[in-house]
This record gives sequence, structure tokens and C-alpha cells, in this order.
Amino acid sequence: MIDIRDLRGVVPYLPTPLTAAGQVDEAALKRLCRHLVTEGVHGLTPLGSTGEFAYLDFAAKERVVATTVEAADGHVPVIAGVAATTTRDAVAQAKRWAALGADGILAVLEAYFPISDQGVIDYFTAIADATDAPVTLYTNPNFQRSDLTMEAIDALSHHPNILFLKDASTNTGRLLSILNRTEGRIGVFAASSHITVAVMMIGGRGWLAGPSCLVPRQSVRLFDLCRTGHWEQAMALQRDLWAVNQVFARYNLAGAVKAGLRLQGFDCGDPAPPQARLTEEQVEAVRRALEKVGAL
Amino acid sequence: MIDIRDLRGVVPYLPTPLTAAGQVDEAALKRLCRHLVTEGVHGLTPLGSTGEFAYLDFAAKERVVATTVEAADGHVPVIAGVAATTTRDAVAQAKRWAALGADGILAVLEAYFPISDQGVIDYFTAIADATDAPVTLYTNPNFQRSDLTMEAIDALSHHPNILFLKDASTNTGRLLSILNRTEGRIGVFAASSHITVAVMMIGGRGWLAGPSCLVPRQSVRLFDLCRTGHWEQAMALQRDLWAVNQVFARYNLAGAVKAGLRLQGFDCGDPAPPQARLTEEQVEAVRRALEKVGAL
Amino acid sequence: MIDIRDLRGVVPYLPTPLTAAGQVDEAALKRLCRHLVTEGVHGLTPLGSTGEFAYLDFAAKERVVATTVEAADGHVPVIAGVAATTTRDAVAQAKRWAALGADGILAVLEAYFPISDQGVIDYFTAIADATDAPVTLYTNPNFQRSDLTMEAIDALSHHPNILFLKDASTNTGRLLSILNRTEGRIGVFAASSHITVAVMMIGGRGWLAGPSCLVPRQSVRLFDLCRTGHWEQAMALQRDLWAVNQVFARYNLAGAVKAGLRLQGFDCGDPAPPQARLTEEQVEAVRRALEKVGAL
Amino acid sequence: MIDIRDLRGVVPYLPTPLTAAGQVDEAALKRLCRHLVTEGVHGLTPLGSTGEFAYLDFAAKERVVATTVEAADGHVPVIAGVAATTTRDAVAQAKRWAALGADGILAVLEAYFPISDQGVIDYFTAIADATDAPVTLYTNPNFQRSDLTMEAIDALSHHPNILFLKDASTNTGRLLSILNRTEGRIGVFAASSHITVAVMMIGGRGWLAGPSCLVPRQSVRLFDLCRTGHWEQAMALQRDLWAVNQVFARYNLAGAVKAGLRLQGFDCGDPAPPQARLTEEQVEAVRRALEKVGAL
Repeated sequence: MIDIRDLRGVVPYLPTPLTAAGQVDEAALKRLCRHLVTEGVHGLTPLGSTGEFAYLDFAAKERVVATTVEAADGHVPVIAGVAATTTRDAVAQAKRWAALGADGILAVLEAYFPISDQGVIDYFTAIADATDAPVTLYTNPNFQRSDLTMEAIDALSHHPNILFLKDASTNTGRLLSILNRTEGRIGVFAASSHITVAVMMIGGRGWLAGPSCLVPRQSVRLFDLCRTGHWEQAMALQRDLWAVNQVFARYNLAGAVKAGLRLQGFDCGDPAPPQARLTEEQVEAVRRALEKVGAL
Repeated sequence: MIDIRDLRGVVPYLPTPLTAAGQVDEAALKRLCRHLVTEGVHGLTPLGSTGEFAYLDFAAKERVVATTVEAADGHVPVIAGVAATTTRDAVAQAKRWAALGADGILAVLEAYFPISDQGVIDYFTAIADATDAPVTLYTNPNFQRSDLTMEAIDALSHHPNILFLKDASTNTGRLLSILNRTEGRIGVFAASSHITVAVMMIGGRGWLAGPSCLVPRQSVRLFDLCRTGHWEQAMALQRDLWAVNQVFARYNLAGAVKAGLRLQGFDCGDPAPPQARLTEEQVEAVRRALEKVGAL
Repeated sequence: MIDIRDLRGVVPYLPTPLTAAGQVDEAALKRLCRHLVTEGVHGLTPLGSTGEFAYLDFAAKERVVATTVEAADGHVPVIAGVAATTTRDAVAQAKRWAALGADGILAVLEAYFPISDQGVIDYFTAIADATDAPVTLYTNPNFQRSDLTMEAIDALSHHPNILFLKDASTNTGRLLSILNRTEGRIGVFAASSHITVAVMMIGGRGWLAGPSCLVPRQSVRLFDLCRTGHWEQAMALQRDLWAVNQVFARYNLAGAVKAGLRLQGFDCGDPAPPQARLTEEQVEAVRRALEKVGAL
Repeated sequence: MIDIRDLRGVVPYLPTPLTAAGQVDEAALKRLCRHLVTEGVHGLTPLGSTGEFAYLDFAAKERVVATTVEAADGHVPVIAGVAATTTRDAVAQAKRWAALGADGILAVLEAYFPISDQGVIDYFTAIADATDAPVTLYTNPNFQRSDLTMEAIDALSHHPNILFLKDASTNTGRLLSILNRTEGRIGVFAASSHITVAVMMIGGRGWLAGPSCLVPRQSVRLFDLCRTGHWEQAMALQRDLWAVNQVFARYNLAGAVKAGLRLQGFDCGDPAPPQARLTEEQVEAVRRALEKVGAL
């Protein structure tokens, strides 16, 4: 397995398969992970937004991390999501995920009351200090109630254990600003809200994204085209894959990924209520988008 | 104790006292509750926003509810906060709080991905179905990632166990719209973001608010003036008390309530990190506001 | 006529009647003004939001002000809207409206790029310096791209020619904050987004609002009940009138006022395209709201 | 001169030079236009955001268009900004600008009250019908109170005289969505809020942007590198130029462009009050950004 510090490529955000009773469906998760590794993805990320981290308790999260690590089986690094409102809870998660074998930590700050920049820096620093697993900062201004300012990112970029950042805004220029500002100290990964070719072009390392679960082979091909500088061919493929991202942006993300996987024969159940599964009409839109890129 | 179905008046949002090690300080909580009851408040609400519900795990919340129920000792009803992203977790909290002796439930929907109106209705209905404890809907568009539409409120108002609503927006007209629309099926309580006299005037039942912990006697006096139609005197007092609310709106709410209580001799510790305690300058602003209304 | 400095009461925001060719329909405007004065309103405000100030050129605005002044005929003060992006244009409007006989100025800052607090203060100060007509600051955060901070309002309140403020937010507490902060230097008027009884209760002087054109008699009655401290009766009337405000909040404001006036026999044409007239279904909602309060 | 229908490349958004008395400084505008044409830009756009269209009256706008057309002298196409709240005013501007010799129209919808999709479509259609000058739709969600939905863009793309769109959001993916949806019917130009190389990569035609006035030669070089597929070299240059865009995003855009041009010897006066000229510290930041890319 490559050193996570050299990580580049396609790292799917895994859904958390749930049984009808609301338990983690470990068998389904394992099967999906193995499939994705076989398709050539470069890493696995349990407990991101797509993984419904906000809907799972500590014990369920433990099962998700343990199962993913077991399924990855050393073939690709596992970057496990840590998300909390308190520093104490975040540190406990990070320590436990590392003990379970996670290679890296994807760190999210959940907030209720607004947090000052210093509080934000303290929170992520505590996570980075907690274990040896390198940290990827995750910022998603659409769904999270706090955002990382440029000043906070710059400060955190000097921590030896904070290596990467995934940005889930739609503002691609912000990624270039981060790259310019941190001068090589932070590697940047795209989300499905960015055009991944554009992020690769400006110097990104790849992408951490839920829709990649549905189109792993196409995603790896897109990454390879970018990596080898075949930009025009990359854009031709990107244009088709973008339609997939658009469908997922329109619906509940966990619901859409689960609906698509069910169509592909990987039943992961439904998103945790009160989230709803996709309507039949929405499932049809997912089906059409997948068919168009040869993923069904 | 009055039947909670007849509840009117001042119902403080309790802070959750925390030790330096981050444990619930049950002694401090008990002492504060007894003080507030002695001052004449009409109910107690643990695990609202002020109570840092978003920063506590299930076990800590259990201790908070049990302690509050014990301290209230049947003198006033206890309305315990239920807040979750999943229906399953919310129902578990509601059942447990009722078993611990809570008289009512304050229900909050935490969301990460957006939830449809039907999902919102299902969530609150499940809480209302879970126990006999009457439910107060709580909507706080500033800090919560979902809001209750007028249609959802109307639908929920027909549930026999959903009696009240507390609105923490700044839009007082919205409360009148709710009262008009639900035609007596929902009683409305104000938050500290509303002018309480105005809410009483339009037919409100009282207020559920964090700052009332600091000015319980003045709040009860204000309520009595409204209740007895002494509007001009009520407004004179309201004008002074509004300055208190303004101070609390400016800072971290839990931090400000805890800072004020410390000045009054009720040490409740600090808000859970990465939230910060108030700066000295901020504490001074709290002190001045309290002194001005005779609360120090 | 009362001195505008003593102004209290109901001051309708006039629509600007337009012919099919897009010209100001002076006859219709005159007829409406006379009707409103007869019904007992305490002032008239041409060129507010309802008056489509943002859709008229200087010459059209001139005709509106001249016509309103002529129709008011000294019975009630006329407060004419000044709205511009540049200080130069605002001052030109203020001077011209005063020369045409306007008794007061309603001042709005239109912005494209954000303006600093000092720029905001300079703008309104220039308007207040331009003529002897007392100035009412108008802040509408829903439709205007700038807002007045508390610091700017406080600074402006010391200008001897800036007397009043009309706030069209939904945040009624903000009005009390302004009253507390400016300590009598600024009189506050409500908009239709506030419960007017609540604003009267906290010390407001009345309201400047578009819907008052449709319910002038009821509005004056509401004002008199407040003025004489008949709060319960005021609230009974307010509850019915609030439904009118709610209808107007739902639709294009100019379109809704014009639709309602057409139902009452005062044809003012349609709002300026690309604004659309109300649909038949929307007109029916306006009709029902007006019928319910005896205004049809 | 190339046919505007084939337009690709760098099209600076011109500032509107103003004298101390607030008049259009035609000599300064002419000198700047000639300089830009000499530097190789592919078109000129008066009366965009940078050109303070929101701060000028009709007569001033006429002088700006006439002067730009004269200075361009047929060497490059002139795309003149039309911006209005009413269809009537917009059509009048478009007809006049075309009569003055403008080759194309940049169309903006200014809104006060929200406009329905159908109203938006009607507005832009009326502009496109008004003259033979091809229309570029301009959408700037940061400063404009209306936005073009994907449905409206699709509908408008079928108009034979609507050829291009400039998007000033920060959402680069949206541009790809537009390109995919309109299937070649609409050519897309970037704004300074996008990474221009990324927009070129996804199939954009160039960019319409204020900062290009300061770095015309570098911008043309960047365009040529993109056009000829030298993506890595393009990105190296882009990285430096992005710092220029970042400075301009931080300040008043018109003020920043005018400050930079003054440093380069093209005095264009100050932005129209109450906008402020840049502070000395801000001017220094502009100076540093320009020096770094060899533009000073």
C-alpha cells in the first residue's frame, strides 16, 4: 500500500449501509469496499457526508471503521471521518479510529453556536495531535455550520500531521487561493461539487466524493487522463460524468448514492429516517445518469 | 404543581453546569434549579440551546434530566429537550426523559441534509407518539439547519400531544401567523430574541429563554404585569430587560449565561470546548447589563 | 396641518398608478390620495417600495411628488421617497421634491457594491443637509442591498434634520434596540412586516405601509385604539388585519396593492414590466383577505 | 474586425473614468481603450459592474458608449452594458447603444422585487429583440438581486440573438452545467471570480473581467496558452494572475481597478460617492499584486 502521505487519486466517500432495523449492514459495506478496490480506487473514506456521519452514534461508527479497514485489507488507505461538536468527542473518535486501523483522519467540525477562528484552530489541532494518522481537513459550507477561513487554514497547514484539505464548496477559485497561500503545505482534494478536471489542472491531488462509488472505473480513468496530461480527453469524459454529479447534487446525497448502488446490485438500504429514500421518479433520474456513462 | 397543559409564564432555559473535566456538575445544577424555583419561575427547561444539548452525549443528558427533575421536586413542570438527527434517537431520548420524570418534551430536529416537510412532520409526530409527555416544538432558524414551515406546524398542531411551540427567530409576526393559522391548537412561547411583552400582547403564553436564569424575579414580575394587563408598566420594565437580551444575543449564549451566573455566585463552569468562555471585556458587558436591572 | 415633526399615525405607502403606456396616471393618483385623506390617514408617502421607486425615472418621480402634494393640499404631510446609488443623485432628488412642496423625505440608499458604514453615514447626512425637510431613514434588508447598522443609526440620529426611521425587517426587537440606543432622538415607524400593535406598544409612532392603502379606515381605527391604550381591542382588530399583511407579503407588493385597489374601484394599472400583475388566483386571495376585514 | 459572433478571448470590463465633478472623463476613457487595444485585447466592455453602470444616468452612459466605440475604432468589438429594472428602460438603452455603434449588448436585469422566471425571460427576450446586436447574458448573484435559473438560460439560449453568457458567481461547475444543457447554443465567458484556465479547459470562450484592464498583456498571453493547449504553462501564469484577482475581490471593484490604473499612469478618478476610493493600505496591496506579475 502507498504511504498515505503520497495519496493521490479517487477516494470514494462510502455510504453507510443500514438494515431495516437501522443497524450497520457490515456485509453490504464489506462487499462494496471490495468492489471499489477491485475497480481501482486509491483509497476509501467511511463517515463522510455521504456516509451519514451525522446520523450515527459512536458504536455504529466504530463498526463502520472496523469493517472498512478489514475490507480494505491493506490494499488502499482508509481515511475515517471524525465529526463532533466538542473537542473531547473528536479526540476520542480519532484515537479509536486509529486504534481500529484507520490510516488517516477526515476531520469535520460540527457546530451549533458559532466558533471563533481560534476555537476552530484548537479543535483541528487537538485532532491532529491525538494520533499519528495524517489529517484531512473537510470543509462543507452547504451543510456544516462553521467554515474554515483562509487564516485558519494557513495556521493549520503548519501542523506536521495536517496534510490535506477537501473542500465541498462550489468555489473552485478558493482551492487555488488555498494552494497559493499554503505553498505546498496542504494538498487539496476536490468534492463532487467541483469539476474534478479543473481541480486537477490547478494542482489538486484527486477527489473525495460520494458519486465515485457509482462510477469508480470511470473516475479512475478520468484521474489517469489528468495525471498524464491528456486534458482534452479528460474533459470529454468529465462532461459526461458531470451529469452524474448534477443528479446527486439535486437530491439527498446519501439517498441518491444508495439508490444508485441498489440499481447496480449493491443494496445498502435507505438513509436513516427522517431522511427519505428517493422517489421512483428520482431513482429514474439516477438510472438515466448512470446508464449514460455506462455504469448500468 | 399545575398541569403542564395549562402552562404559562417564565420557563428558564437551564445551562448545563460542567466540571473542568467536562462532566455534568449535578450539584451546581440542583442549586441553580432550586434558586430559580424559589424566585418564582413557572417551569424549567433542561437541554435547550442554552443547555448545550448539541455538546452532550446521551449519558450526560440523562444526568441533566434526572437532576433537574429531582431539583424541581414537583414544584414546577420540567420540559426536557430532545434533539436528534434521526427519528430513532429522538424517540429513545423522549422515552428515557419521560421515564426519568420529565413532564414535557421540547422537541428539536437537528439536520445535516435538508429534510422534506413530510420528513419533518414524521419526526415530530414520532416524538409526540412516543410518550404521554406533551410536546413543545422548538424552531431556531439561526442555529438549526431545518425550519418548520407554516404547513408543517399546522399539520402537527392537530396531534393531541403537541401543545406548544417556541420560536427563536426574530420574526414576531410569524408568531401571530402561527396563532392565527392554528386557531388555538398551539400555544406559543417566546424566546429571548423576541420582545416578550409583544408576544404576550399577541396572545403568547410566556417565554422559554436562557437569560431568564439571570433575571428570574424580574422576568416573573414582567409576566405578571402582562398577565394582568398592566402594559405600560410592563413596557417600562421590558425596556430595561431588553438590554440584557441584547448582551446575550451578541455572545456565545451558553458562555454568556454561565458568565452571568458566575457573577451571581452560581458557578456553572465554562461552555464545552472548542467553545470559549467569555473574555474579560465581555464579562464586563454582562456585569453592566445585570447591574442595570438590579440582578447584581 | 400638523407639523411633520409631530407626526404620528398611519401613513400609507402610495402605489404609483401607471397607464398601459407606462406613464404616471396622475388622475388616478390624485383620486386615491383624496380618498385616503378622507378616510383619515395622517400622511402620504409617494415613492416608497410600494410606489415602485426602483422602476421610475426622475421625470416620472417628479410627476408623482407634484401630484401627491397637490392632492394632499395641505391636509396631511407628504413624505417623498429619495432613493439613489449616488449621493449626487439623492441630493438632487431631495432638493427637487422639497421645491415641489414635499414636507419630508423618506431616504433610501440603493447599493450595488457594498458601502462602508462611513459611506452610509455620508450619504444620509448629505440628504439631510440638502433641504429643511425632515428625513425618515428607511431600511429594508429584504430588497435593499445595504442595511443600516446600529452604529450608523446612532451617528445619524444626532443630525437635527433626521427625525424618524422606518424599518421593514421582520425583527421587531431591533426597533426596541434602536429606541433604546437613540434615547428619543429617532422616532420609529413600523412597516407591514411588523405587528403594528407591538410596535405601538414599544413606543412606535405609527406605520408607513403599502397595505394601509387598502384598509385606511381600519388602520386609523387600530392606531386610535393603540393611542388610547385599548390594547385588547387593538389586538382583536390587529389579528384580522394581520391576514391582510400576510397576503401582501406573499406576492409582489406593488402588484398586490394595485390588485386590491382595482377591486375597490381605484384602478392604478399594473406594476411596471417585467413585474407581472397578480394571477387570478392571487387576486382571489387578496379579495378574500379584504372581504374578511370589511374592506370590500 | 472579427465578427462578434466568433468572439473569443480577453474582453476587459472598462471602468468609467469620472472627473472630480462627477462627469464622464472622455479623454481618460479614450486613452485607456486605445492602450488596451494596443496590448492585444479582443474586445471592450463598457458599463459592466466595473464600469459602475449602477451609478450612472442615461446621458452619462451614452457618453461612455459613444467614447468607447470611437476609441475602439473598429479594431475590436464593443459590448455595451444594458442594465435596468424595467423592460422599457432596457430596450431604450439597447436601441441607443446599437445606434451609437455598439457591436454587442451585455444584458443585466436589475431587480427590486423578485421577478418570476417568465418575467426574467421576457426581459432578456425584449432586449434581444430590440436590435441586431448579439446579446451576452450577465449573471452576478453577488451584487444583483435576481439570478438566472438553468431553465431560464435554456429557454433564452434558443433566441437567435442571444449568443453568450458571462457568469460572475464563484461556481465554476455551473458553467459546465450551462454548456451541457445548452448544447452549443450559448458560449460562456468567465468573470474574475473564476479561474480562467479552468473555464477555458471546460470549453469557455474567454473572459469579461475588470482586472484585465490592469494586466491586459498577461491576460492575452494566458488566453493564447489556453487556446493552443499549453495547459501547464497556462497554469503557471494563472497562479500568479490569480493573486491579482484575489486583491480585486477583496475591495470595491471599481475603486480597485481605478487605483491600479492610477498606479499605471491612467488616472480615471475615483468611484462615484458614497463609494470610497481605496485607502493607502489597500492601494499598497494593489501595487504589490501588480508588481508581482510585472504590471508595474
